[in-house]
This record gives sequence, structure tokens and C-alpha cells, in this order.
Amino acid sequence: MSQALRTRLFEELDALALVDPHSHINPHAPASHTLADILGYHYYTELAHSAGLPKDRIEAAGLDPKEKVGRLVEALGPLDNTIQYSWLIEMLEVFFDFEGLFLTPGNWEAVYDASAARMQQPGWAAEVLRKSKLEAVFLTNDFDDPLEGFDTKLYVPCLRTDDLVFHLAKPEVRQRLEKASGISIGNTVNLRQAIGQLFEHFTSHGAKACAISLPPDFAPERVEPAAAETALEAVFSAGLSASAERRRELSNFVFWTLAEFCAEHRLPFDLMIGVNRAVYAAGVYQGQDLYDSRVSLVQYRELFNAFPQVTFPISVLASVTNQELTSYSWIFPNVATNGHWWYSNTPAYIEHDASARLEAVPRTKQIGYYSDMYKLEFGLPKFAMYKRILAKILAERCVIDRGWTEERALDFGRQVLRGNVERIFGMEK
Amino acid sequence: MSQALRTRLFEELDALALVDPHSHINPHAPASHTLADILGYHYYTELAHSAGLPKDRIEAAGLDPKEKVGRLVEALGPLDNTIQYSWLIEMLEVFFDFEGLFLTPGNWEAVYDASAARMQQPGWAAEVLRKSKLEAVFLTNDFDDPLEGFDTKLYVPCLRTDDLVFHLAKPEVRQRLEKASGISIGNTVNLRQAIGQLFEHFTSHGAKACAISLPPDFAPERVEPAAAETALEAVFSAGLSASAERRRELSNFVFWTLAEFCAEHRLPFDLMIGVNRAVYAAGVYQGQDLYDSRVSLVQYRELFNAFPQVTFPISVLASVTNQELTSYSWIFPNVATNGHWWYSNTPAYIEHDASARLEAVPRTKQIGYYSDMYKLEFGLPKFAMYKRILAKILAERCVIDRGWTEERALDFGRQVLRGNVERIFGMEK
Amino acid sequence: MSQALRTRLFEELDALALVDPHSHINPHAPASHTLADILGYHYYTELAHSAGLPKDRIEAAGLDPKEKVGRLVEALGPLDNTIQYSWLIEMLEVFFDFEGLFLTPGNWEAVYDASAARMQQPGWAAEVLRKSKLEAVFLTNDFDDPLEGFDTKLYVPCLRTDDLVFHLAKPEVRQRLEKASGISIGNTVNLRQAIGQLFEHFTSHGAKACAISLPPDFAPERVEPAAAETALEAVFSAGLSASAERRRELSNFVFWTLAEFCAEHRLPFDLMIGVNRAVYAAGVYQGQDLYDSRVSLVQYRELFNAFPQVTFPISVLASVTNQELTSYSWIFPNVATNGHWWYSNTPAYIEHDASARLEAVPRTKQIGYYSDMYKLEFGLPKFAMYKRILAKILAERCVIDRGWTEERALDFGRQVLRGNVERIFGMEK
Repeated sequence: MSQALRTRLFEELDALALVDPHSHINPHAPASHTLADILGYHYYTELAHSAGLPKDRIEAAGLDPKEKVGRLVEALGPLDNTIQYSWLIEMLEVFFDFEGLFLTPGNWEAVYDASAARMQQPGWAAEVLRKSKLEAVFLTNDFDDPLEGFDTKLYVPCLRTDDLVFHLAKPEVRQRLEKASGISIGNTVNLRQAIGQLFEHFTSHGAKACAISLPPDFAPERVEPAAAETALEAVFSAGLSASAERRRELSNFVFWTLAEFCAEHRLPFDLMIGVNRAVYAAGVYQGQDLYDSRVSLVQYRELFNAFPQVTFPISVLASVTNQELTSYSWIFPNVATNGHWWYSNTPAYIEHDASARLEAVPRTKQIGYYSDMYKLEFGLPKFAMYKRILAKILAERCVIDRGWTEERALDFGRQVLRGNVERIFGMEK
Repeated sequence: MSQALRTRLFEELDALALVDPHSHINPHAPASHTLADILGYHYYTELAHSAGLPKDRIEAAGLDPKEKVGRLVEALGPLDNTIQYSWLIEMLEVFFDFEGLFLTPGNWEAVYDASAARMQQPGWAAEVLRKSKLEAVFLTNDFDDPLEGFDTKLYVPCLRTDDLVFHLAKPEVRQRLEKASGISIGNTVNLRQAIGQLFEHFTSHGAKACAISLPPDFAPERVEPAAAETALEAVFSAGLSASAERRRELSNFVFWTLAEFCAEHRLPFDLMIGVNRAVYAAGVYQGQDLYDSRVSLVQYRELFNAFPQVTFPISVLASVTNQELTSYSWIFPNVATNGHWWYSNTPAYIEHDASARLEAVPRTKQIGYYSDMYKLEFGLPKFAMYKRILAKILAERCVIDRGWTEERALDFGRQVLRGNVERIFGMEK
Repeated sequence: MSQALRTRLFEELDALALVDPHSHINPHAPASHTLADILGYHYYTELAHSAGLPKDRIEAAGLDPKEKVGRLVEALGPLDNTIQYSWLIEMLEVFFDFEGLFLTPGNWEAVYDASAARMQQPGWAAEVLRKSKLEAVFLTNDFDDPLEGFDTKLYVPCLRTDDLVFHLAKPEVRQRLEKASGISIGNTVNLRQAIGQLFEHFTSHGAKACAISLPPDFAPERVEPAAAETALEAVFSAGLSASAERRRELSNFVFWTLAEFCAEHRLPFDLMIGVNRAVYAAGVYQGQDLYDSRVSLVQYRELFNAFPQVTFPISVLASVTNQELTSYSWIFPNVATNGHWWYSNTPAYIEHDASARLEAVPRTKQIGYYSDMYKLEFGLPKFAMYKRILAKILAERCVIDRGWTEERALDFGRQVLRGNVERIFGMEK
């Protein structure tokens, strides 16, 4: 009975058109050109490398895409248990009518060629979006992205601010900011003006969010103006040689300034909390980051209290932080739960974490899922994974355990899948 | 099959009369007078506020109870997914024959009036206790509570000590202690005498426990007498301006003294570990506290070793601390597991945490559940939630996974629900 | 349906012959002589003590084994809910045809006598291995173990190094090292030579792993030669009175040296991370250790990067560290997941932790389980517990949730149960 119920709920949820509130899509090349774009996703390269594939086999300069796919396919056997591998097979089935259970050295080449032919037809991206029932996809734009040449209703800009907060000590970042804003930066006043220019640019181009990923030891605090000025002078003169303390103060000043502009422009500020960069420095491209799960949202206490008018959709990297996220969202009006990020984006953790949120956070404050994808094809299997788990939870924990009607469960499921995305990010504006 | 089994086990467990080993009931006004007492519970006000209800809409001075309920009902829609909302509906069904699934702006007024009529009839509290099958309810008494005017066999006193440990720097707390004990306090010797007086007063009035809630960074240690004396002098002269170090030492001295008197009077010492107060200072009444889940029971190592003769029933705020609680209870004879507290008192966390305890902690050392309620009506739905989860775990993890007979599972369930409460707190004395 | 599926999968997995990659078996006395060897396992003594049995009732010098068992049996009632108790009953059933559900003061003596008669027959250890389908069992050998007088293909040596890393300040440890290596140790050069001798000795006697258990605050780092020399001089002259800093440096030097020899000898280095020793100092033998779950694998970042050629099979003590283990194994080629250790070796945590690993770590990098046993009889019920949970996860999360065929699930199960043990530890060499 429970399985039939899960299937019914999944099918209803799966019929819904969605908005993906966080991705890394390049709007100028949103879909894949060959399987190399798909198998080049860090989930496959890092798992294949972890299982024994030398990095230089797939990162050699000028490597032909087909050759790269062939080398990766040879290394996929040890990954065929993973949920990430199941995304691959589901993409191949849905988009390219693949009928096997495994992509192997014996069958990949035909799949490569057939899929490349389909991908290169005009309208491929639109077909992927249609089959995936995605009506809009949020981007992650560099702060100096011109945001031109694409439909910002379909590909919704989002101001990514990691560089501003953590890398302003690098001269090239400062130069990019000066160029993008048209403002020469020599003190905190014109640094603030320059940042304000970015918000003007982004909001006038339809941006719906500001976003940043944060290391586990980050604990934002307001910096006094004089201290901020001193920090800026130290960092701008010494660059990466400036003291950790001065760099931290400048980071805090920029971060706080971003929150102020989010308030002014009524933009939600997505916080993605917990990543340590380059822990495995010899890893493959984008496969070097890990984390220290000893992080607490109490580090954000001052921020949440200082900006009641800014909504903070929050992602946490480790499942052990999910209960804090659930509790902080239950208490703070301006904290919302946001998807299942990266190392927590696997079924066992999604099920545990989503179950806790669904029963304790107001239904209006939960953003169920985002794809985090780099290429459009990934939206379908990733959202499908989430919808299957959501259907399982609604079936087992709402309908069976709590006696809800199926319609009540579906109504709730639709809200966390779509309704909240539109409301929280002001899509109707 | 599994669902029928769960139902059978639940019905048997639900037939058992219980003792609630921790609540905040006021024995002089134990039950609600109107729905305002029920909807005024912080679980509803904080969730409604988190979902958008301005605090001043419900905390205005002199607000009429019925008006307050009307305003809260308007704000309940976004909470109707929560387990806390399900408690509300279950109370309305059981106590007031409510038949809807939701309390809405369209139906609340009739419910308000009908329930108020019932609540104001004589014997309402007794009727609630009877329907809830509660034979006794532990209180949480201020240290200067006279403990008079109520039946201490029904409403069992418990000495709450947060003020003594953490707020003795406040002159009013000191004055309350002097008044309650009849002892003028100028040094650690008479501070100890005064605390001893409280224990005499409480135990002579039937108290069965001493209790305290503790912040995540608390790590009790014995303080040398001279250091304690110095700390007391510093804190008593400088009050809240005393150094953090001196205040910490005085807290430790008082805490250790409490443990010594628990040993002398054979009182269990309930430790509720992990809360940070007023993290969201602008929150509603009792809706401001959160936590930092980075806490370890190793902080209590010296205490557990120093007081082998004191039983410490322990509650942890975060589910991530539950495995430590399970392990420390499995090793230390004087550590017992105690209920599912606050932010961990939701089904997904109860199920995960209780499953671990039930299979690894001696059956005699587990106190299954307490209500933590402020008004008697909450005992029924909260215990029912726990009993449903307990029945689920016993069905799935004992009967199905481990081949137990149903009677064996029920025998175990009854012990964690009731038997251990009586034995650990010496109810038979 | 799900239960029949679980049973089918379990039976297939249970037919497989296994290699146990971590135990504390004494190869000269591998099996039990009486029930006192079984009930003397710390899981029973510590739980019985935790439930009220005074330590001196079972640790009195010269206590007769039968008397000891009688005293323990009287104390078992409060433990009969635990999974550890279920191991006992399963052993009695399988090895001694016991038919009861409980071992009681009324029935234990007959079981004691009958089992003692069986245990004392020649070939008992071989019979236990045969019934348990164990083809080889890894040991945990002191560094100065002569490794003689037993079949190292059956009882596979493993170099345990806790003493070398953490107790070299004790003169007796140094003397043992000098004696075992035949090298007089006065500086880091001959300390390294002595350690090298141990590796020669162990690998020439068929050792397949080096292993160590580590406290939660350990964070290995390379020590500069001059600093190591200074540390060694300080520790060798002051012993346990040397400063914590010098002792830490020497520990780090020895640890790093071990990793270097693991690289040279191609031995996996088992890291068992997270234990605090003697937290409950008055506890029973081996029942005094607990943990602080605030530990992160980021503490091992430098190590994992420095030794890409060494495989680190890692066990974590607390389930809250399991997601980090899963993620680090998914990223680092040289990190593998290893079993379910000690306080995490209970069904609720195994299920949660194994579910996460099975879906996110390459299938080749997961060592499903080891027994950690002291006597051979424990292998059967412990592995059976794991295989039941593995069958449950494969049934529910692979076959039902992900649509795998049963054969595919079994193939994966067999690999984590056996295939990976052979490959990772080089059993075919």
C-alpha cells in the first residue's frame, strides 16, 4: 500500500512545472554539447578520480571530448552504486532513449554519437527545459557579469558575491569591481558605492537574489567605520600579505554592506554555509572542496537580528547542521530553509533532513530543492530524486503516520516545490 | 501488516496511566481557561511570528483573550503542516469534540466559546487529567516557591535552580534566596546553608527532583573553597559587572553545591543541556532561545565521576548530541536518558534518537518522555505523539527486525513510559 | 513484500564466506573456554555495571569463572533490550542449541556446563570459524608481538601502534621497542630505524595493515627534523613530565614516520578516530572510554594530502562524523570507509551511516564491516546483525527506491562484505 501511495504522490508532484532557484547554468550555453559536458560534471570526475582514475587522464590540455568520455566511461564501474550514477542513466533514458542499466566501454560510443547529434540540433536547450518542466532557472553570476544577451525571465540573474567578500585582497578582483561599477575605489565610501552600483545593475536586469558560499569558521559581524577604513587600507596596500585580522575585518565590512543593499533592494540573501575550499588540493577541477561539520548558525546571530527585513534562504553543507537550520527557521522570521546542498544532496540525508523540516518549519518558509546544476540536463534527474523522496516522506510521515488526506499532502508538496520559490524570491514582481 | 501491528502496540501503550516527569504546570491554575491559554503556548506564538505575525499583534498589553485567539487563528495557516499544529487539533478533538481538520477564521469562534464554557466548569483540570491518563505531574518550581495550597502527590514539586547558578549576581535573586532560606548571605558558608535550606524545604514538601537548564558552553567543575570565596565576594560586590571568570566560578560553586545536596537528599538532578537564551532577542515571549549544537557530554566528565551516588536524568537539546547521551548512559551508572526536549521533540528526531537509546541503553535507565507543558491539555497530544513513535519503533525495530513477541515489546514500552519514572524518581517512597 | 525481499537478500549474503578485517583475537586462544569469556566481554560487563552491578562483584581477583557468570547472569535483566544481549542469545542458539529467549538465574547453569564441554573439545575454534563462515581474521598485535606459533594466513597480523604514538614517554614502552627492534634508541634517526624494524618484522610475517586509535583532538602534522629531535630529547629525559607540546611533537613525529613506512611497505593504515580514554575511570575493565563527538576529518587534511600512496581505511566513533567520512572517501582516493565502530555499532546508527555510504562512496572503497571481537564466537552474531541491516538497506533503498534487480543489489552487497576487504588489504598477494 505504501509503495502505491508513494507512486501516486510522486506522479502528481512530477506533473508540476518548476522554477529552479539555484544553478550554475551559463545562459549563453545552457545545455550540453556532448556527453563530455555531462560526464565532465565534477560529481563524475571526482568520484572516478577517487576510485582510481588519475587526474591527468581527464584534465590534459586539449583532450578531445569523445576521448575524455571514453576514458571516464572506463572508470565508471566503481561508481555505478552511487546516486550520481543514477542521474546519468536517467538523463540518458529520458533525453536519449537509452535502454541499458549501465554505460559501459561496450555501449558508450553509440550513445555518445546519438546524443551529440540531438544536442546539436537547434532548440535542444528548450527541449530539455520542456521535458524537465522547468519554467525558469536561477543563475549564479559573477559580480561583473554584463547580464546581456539572454532572457532574464527564463534565466534569472543572481549576484554571487564570494569574490567580493573573500578575495578583495587580490588586485584583479578590485580591478574587476572598479571596471564593473565605473568607480575608483580607495576607501570604504567608494567601495560601498561600487557595491551599490552592482546591485543597481543586477536588479535592473531582473536579479532575484544575492548569494554567497561561506567557510565553516565565518561569523559575520558589523565592523565600525574607522576599523573598516583601516582594514581596507591595510588590505589594499598589502594584498594577500595583509594580516588575517585585517582581511577578516574587510570581509565583514563587505558582507555587512551586501546585507544592507539586500535590504534596500529587497533581495533575498542566499547563504550557503560550511565549505572549506581546496582541502584536497591535488583533486580534479571542482573536486577539491570539503568541510568541517563543526559549524553553528549561532555564528549568524548578529546578522539575523540586524536585518529583520532581509530574507536569508539558507543551505547547510552537513546534515548535522540541518537541525539548527530547522530550529532557526522556526524561530527567526527572516530565515528560510533552502534545498539540500552538495554533500547533503544524497537520498539518505535528504530524507532525514527534509523530514525534520517538513514537520517543524512553517510551510511558507521551506524552499524544497534547487538543482545546483551546470548543464540543463541535470535538472530532471536531480529534481526527480528529490520528488521521489518528498513523495516518500509525504506518504509515510504525513498520510500514514499523521492521517492526512493525499490532497493535503500534495498541496503541501506543491508549495515547497514551487509556491515558496515564487513568493520568497518575488517572482511575481 | 506493519501498520496493524503499530496500531495494536499503540493501543496497548495508550491504555497505561502515566506520570509526567517534567512540566511547567502551575498547580494553582493547571488547566487552560480559554483557548488563549492554549494558543498562547510559545510553540504557536513563535511559529506564527516566524511565519509573519508581528509580535505586537499578540503581545499588546491588555489584549483581550478572545481577540488574541482571533489574531492567532488568522496566522495559523502557514503552520498547519507542523506537528505542533497537530497537537492543537488533537486537543480540540479529544477535549471539545471538534471535528474539523483545521482551526480557521471561519470556525474558531464557536470553538472558542464552547471550549471556554467547558474549561470554566468545576473539575475541568481533573477531567483533563483523567482523559489524559495522567496520575501525577512534575512541576518546575522557583527555588522560593512556598509549595503550599496544592496536592504534592498529584503535582510533584521539583527544585528549579537556573536562577541560583546563573543569576546570583542579580541583587533580587540574592534577596529572594535570603528570604526563602531565612539566612543572610555574605560568604560561601552561609550561601551553602541557604541552599541546604531550600533542599530541606523542597524535600519536606515531596520534591522528587532538582533540575536546571544549561548553556552549551557550560562545563561544571569543582571550585576550591578559597577561589569560591573570592568569586562570591567579587560577584556580590560588583553584581553583573563582575568579571566573567568570577561569575563562572561562582556558578560552578553553586552548581557543585547543588549536586552535593542532591547526593545528601537522594534527589535525581535533571540536566537539560544545550540552550542559548535570547538568541533572537526581538522574538515573542519564550520564543527567543536557540542553541549551538557543538556541545559534548565530556564537559560533564568531572561531575559524573564525582557524584556516583546522584542520578542525572539528562535531556539534550540537539539530536546530534543524542548518541553521546546514549553512550554516556550505557557507560556511567548514574546517567539516564530523559525524554525528547524542545527542538528535538518532533517526530523525525524522536524516532531517530529513541531508536538508538532503546537498543543500546539498559532498559532501566531510560525515561521515555515528559510533556514540558505549561497547561494540562498538552499532556495528551504530546504523550500520544511519543507513544505513536514508540509503537512504530517497537513494531519495526523490535518485533519485525529482531523477532520479539508483541508482549515483550509492550513490556519494554511500559517500562520506559512509566516504570522507570517511578523507580528513578523514587515515587514509591 | 519488503520483508520477504529482505529475507531473500539476507540469506544470499549470509551464504558468503568472509574475512574479518579487524578483531582483537588472541591467535593462541582464539575461542572461548567457558561462558565467562563470553559474558566477560566489556559490552556485557559495562552494561551490567551501568545498570547497577558493582564492579568488584565481577573483577575480584581470583574469581571463579562459573561464579562470575552466575553474578553476571543475575544482572542481565536490565540489558535484555540491547542489541548486545541479542548477540549473546544468537551465539547460544547457534553454537550451543539454546532454545530460550533469555539467559536467566534459572537456566544459565545448564548452559554454562554444556557450553564448557563443547568449548573444551579439540577443534572448537575451527568449528566456530566454520559455522561463522570466516576464512581469515585480522588481529591487533602489540608492536613487540613475536607473531609466531600460529597460522598467519588464518590469523592475519596487524601492527597496532597506539603505544608508539602516545606512550613513548613511558620507559617501559621504549624498552619494549628497543628489545623488539634490537636497536638502542637515543635520537630520531634510530627511533626511525627501530620503527622500520617493526615493519620488516610484521610484513615478513604476513601483516596486512597498520592500525591506531586516536583521540578526538588529534590532528597529525609533519614535524621538522630539528623540532622532532628536540621533542625526543625532552620526552626521553622528562618522561611523562615532559610538556604537552613536546609530547605532542614526538607523537606527531612517530605518527608521520608510521605513515612513511606504510607507504614504503604498501600497508593500509587503519585510523580509528575519536576515542577519549578513561572518561569514567572507575568503570569496569575496557568500560571506561567515551568520546567527544566534536571532531572533524579536516584535522587529517595534511596527512591525506601528504600520503596519496597510502590507503587509510577509516572508522569513526560517532555517527555525526559519518557524513564527513562519506564525503572525504568520495573525494580523496586514499580514504576508504571502514565498518561501524563501537558506539556506532548498533542497528539504528549502522542503518543511517551505511545508507549514506552505500549511495555516495565508490563501491570499491567501502569495507562493510569488521567484528572488533575478542573471542571468535562473536563474529557470527555481529556479522549477522550487519548483514541483516545491509539486506534491509539493499531491499528498501536499492531494490524498492531505485529499481535495482536483486542480483545487482547482491553483487554490491558481496563486494562491501568481502571483495573490498581482499582488494584493499592485498589478501591475494
